[in-house]
Amino acid sequence: MTTESELKEKLATCTRILSMRGLLGLFGHISAYHSAAGRVFISPGKGSDKSILQPSDMAVMDLAGNDLEGKGRVPIESPIHTALHSARADALAVAHLHSPNATLFAIARREYRPVTLQGAMYGEGIPEYPEPHLITTPQRGKKLADLIGNKRAALLRGHGIVVVANDIEEMLYACLTLEDDTRKAAQASALGELRFFSPEECRQFESGVSLESRARRAWTYFTQLESRWDRQPASVTNDFV
Amino acid sequence: MTTESELKEKLATCTRILSMRGLLGLFGHISAYHSAAGRVFISPGKGSDKSILQPSDMAVMDLAGNDLEGKGRVPIESPIHTALHSARADALAVAHLHSPNATLFAIARREYRPVTLQGAMYGEGIPEYPEPHLITTPQRGKKLADLIGNKRAALLRGHGIVVVANDIEEMLYACLTLEDDTRKAAQASALGELRFFSPEECRQFESGVSLESRARRAWTYFTQLESRWDRQPASVTNDFV
Amino acid sequence: MTTESELKEKLATCTRILSMRGLLGLFGHISAYHSAAGRVFISPGKGSDKSILQPSDMAVMDLAGNDLEGKGRVPIESPIHTALHSARADALAVAHLHSPNATLFAIARREYRPVTLQGAMYGEGIPEYPEPHLITTPQRGKKLADLIGNKRAALLRGHGIVVVANDIEEMLYACLTLEDDTRKAAQASALGELRFFSPEECRQFESGVSLESRARRAWTYFTQLESRWDRQPASVTNDFV
Amino acid sequence: MTTESELKEKLATCTRILSMRGLLGLFGHISAYHSAAGRVFISPGKGSDKSILQPSDMAVMDLAGNDLEGKGRVPIESPIHTALHSARADALAVAHLHSPNATLFAIARREYRPVTLQGAMYGEGIPEYPEPHLITTPQRGKKLADLIGNKRAALLRGHGIVVVANDIEEMLYACLTLEDDTRKAAQASALGELRFFSPEECRQFESGVSLESRARRAWTYFTQLESRWDRQPASVTNDFV
Repeated sequence: MTTESELKEKLATCTRILSMRGLLGLFGHISAYHSAAGRVFISPGKGSDKSILQPSDMAVMDLAGNDLEGKGRVPIESPIHTALHSARADALAVAHLHSPNATLFAIARREYRPVTLQGAMYGEGIPEYPEPHLITTPQRGKKLADLIGNKRAALLRGHGIVVVANDIEEMLYACLTLEDDTRKAAQASALGELRFFSPEECRQFESGVSLESRARRAWTYFTQLESRWDRQPASVTNDFV
Repeated sequence: MTTESELKEKLATCTRILSMRGLLGLFGHISAYHSAAGRVFISPGKGSDKSILQPSDMAVMDLAGNDLEGKGRVPIESPIHTALHSARADALAVAHLHSPNATLFAIARREYRPVTLQGAMYGEGIPEYPEPHLITTPQRGKKLADLIGNKRAALLRGHGIVVVANDIEEMLYACLTLEDDTRKAAQASALGELRFFSPEECRQFESGVSLESRARRAWTYFTQLESRWDRQPASVTNDFV
Repeated sequence: MTTESELKEKLATCTRILSMRGLLGLFGHISAYHSAAGRVFISPGKGSDKSILQPSDMAVMDLAGNDLEGKGRVPIESPIHTALHSARADALAVAHLHSPNATLFAIARREYRPVTLQGAMYGEGIPEYPEPHLITTPQRGKKLADLIGNKRAALLRGHGIVVVANDIEEMLYACLTLEDDTRKAAQASALGELRFFSPEECRQFESGVSLESRARRAWTYFTQLESRWDRQPASVTNDFV
Repeated sequence: MTTESELKEKLATCTRILSMRGLLGLFGHISAYHSAAGRVFISPGKGSDKSILQPSDMAVMDLAGNDLEGKGRVPIESPIHTALHSARADALAVAHLHSPNATLFAIARREYRPVTLQGAMYGEGIPEYPEPHLITTPQRGKKLADLIGNKRAALLRGHGIVVVANDIEEMLYACLTLEDDTRKAAQASALGELRFFSPEECRQFESGVSLESRARRAWTYFTQLESRWDRQPASVTNDFV
């Protein structure tokens, strides 16, 4: 079983990777739930520099959203995380990002449907949270969790995305895949009508390849890249909010 | 109260941050007004390298646009700044940028309306200055200030933008937000019709979150990033004029 | 005649160049066939860091896809490579990439046709493999090879591309050209209807310039660039899968 | 009067700046004519690494295109340069680039017209060379020069651009301006119909500001940036051909 210390280390690494990829920016955060201990670890808000965060920088709360350290590092949108960790036993990792391309589907009048094979993991669709506010209360968190149901993600209108996964490796893979699929969809739209993969084609593809194995390879790949990243801020673009 | 020395330091830092983000380029400039002293500080024109500017590089003028140092560093478009500092007591910081995405709304036949939650600060709209010239005289500056009225920004047709703020931190936040909102609007347009936030939704969002607090967090975040920036010019793109 | 050692060295260099250009990403691979020895060299799968690969990192298989080293480094999509090396005597180098722009033509309902002079090498068109699966079996590989016939490339629906060439230098040139031509096509589509080069114009252009000479110059150019690359991961974008 | 040695130094600097901006790539070249000496200096072809070129790397030819050094460094498209230096007394600097955005107007069925104030220098329009070949003979060069007439530039269909200027500083400014104007036009097209500046508006703008002064400031700015460029190849994108 993963220890709390291992979980915090992985969460910090994943934070830095998402920062390197320009998906986290100023206001994004990710969390992991240690169910045995009933504790949630979350990357800190408050204008922290996401590309250099260490395990000890991760904030700690319980499922009710109580800041267990009293250091004021818990982001104001933490109800996104506590609501999802509470609602689903398989939601051990939750990301709230402002992915530049995935967010486009929360702006245009266009339903999300996968256009890439890897995007098949989102074959069941991605619902949208329509309210023009941040998710800063348990009530709003509950509403978001109800909306997502058993799906993998939600769009937040004019704001960003929420991704739910079984562990941190899967969360990283799911976040990168959604951004890649939506970027290609946005760019291909200039060329003509898009050809989607049907829910049936998606199920067929997913059953033929192991998500766990793909997630593990992506984790190996991006941790290597992150370990030699020089953390130069100007080479990361599109990462404002 | 902020001293002139603090103001110049913050203005130089903000200049470097905007340069790092590719928003300032060759011909942009930003200013801050010290009302007690009646002096305006402004980042220099004349082909200066914006990414390395220091407080002592800031030019100084009065509200009439007189160069108080006689060093010839005041940009030719300084009437943008003096007109706005004169017209509004709350316009203590003014930016003139050639933001690559915001400027697209000064080119296409499309009215600007916010598509992101953070963009709600521009819910009252952004008027456009239509004349095909640079703003190089007090008369043109006055016309621009009249056009902006109490709004936060103006588009300059085929040219760039002007952003008005209460202090330098708010100016930075306002500039980054407008560029982010317009980039997402431009990119999402490929996917379909855009869904805007109505003026009413914008007012509601803005009343629920503190602009000052968001601006402070963004300032913390970007000053950290800028302090470890290697100032490599090729990683900053889209920053010509 | 090229020795196996020279072939592996060139293949590793080409792997790093394509990685530097953001065309290889996590799941792409390239191969070269040494026909005298009946051995295929291929860049490794398994989450390897493509930007630092050396000749000794190249995996080795025979034309039947047998891993001749038993190190488990052969990518699961190796049938793409073995099928093409087997089917055509002139297919001594094969690339499977997830080129961000070329892949757009495997997503949008739009037939590929060249818009640039260099793209004339693809004047005969690029067929598409329509099935929603990875090419992981000899049967699928055979189907792909039949589809390509004597053409230079194939699109894999919602997935990526396959490029066939006579040697590694030509493969690099062909991959870079296809990405450049498709990026320009995608971007120019925003401006209006595209003007293609007809098959006849393409043949005429290709007969007037030497592909071998262009490929050699590109090889000289990009090996120089790669040799001084700092391998910073954040400056390479669009390279997820 | 500028000496040959000064001219070569400036030409090498301009080559490196255009390379830093991703406008020169593998196959672009720029030239300057020393009319008193009757000698043309030109950046070398043959796969040279454009970002590190020095004055001594510049090739030398006469107006008839004879390689005066016999080192084989003159690019095969040198007739572009000799034809224009011969045809116009004011064409002392000539660039042949594959600017990623300007070239889009040589691909889409869309006439170029300026959308930015700085683009007003192209208010007379930009003709297009329609033939599907490289300009490798004096006859083709002559045809190009006739097509350009007294204008500032030409588009080469599916290929790139040619820019004509009075000196190297003006050439740099003209190349950067055309790329900036066309990038904004391409991107703004996603938002709606473009609003152009009329020829009359362009003339009015150009008469009110000094091109020489703007070019000098841009030269100051970009030479500073280039002098501290680390020449990392992955941070320069879109620069293939």
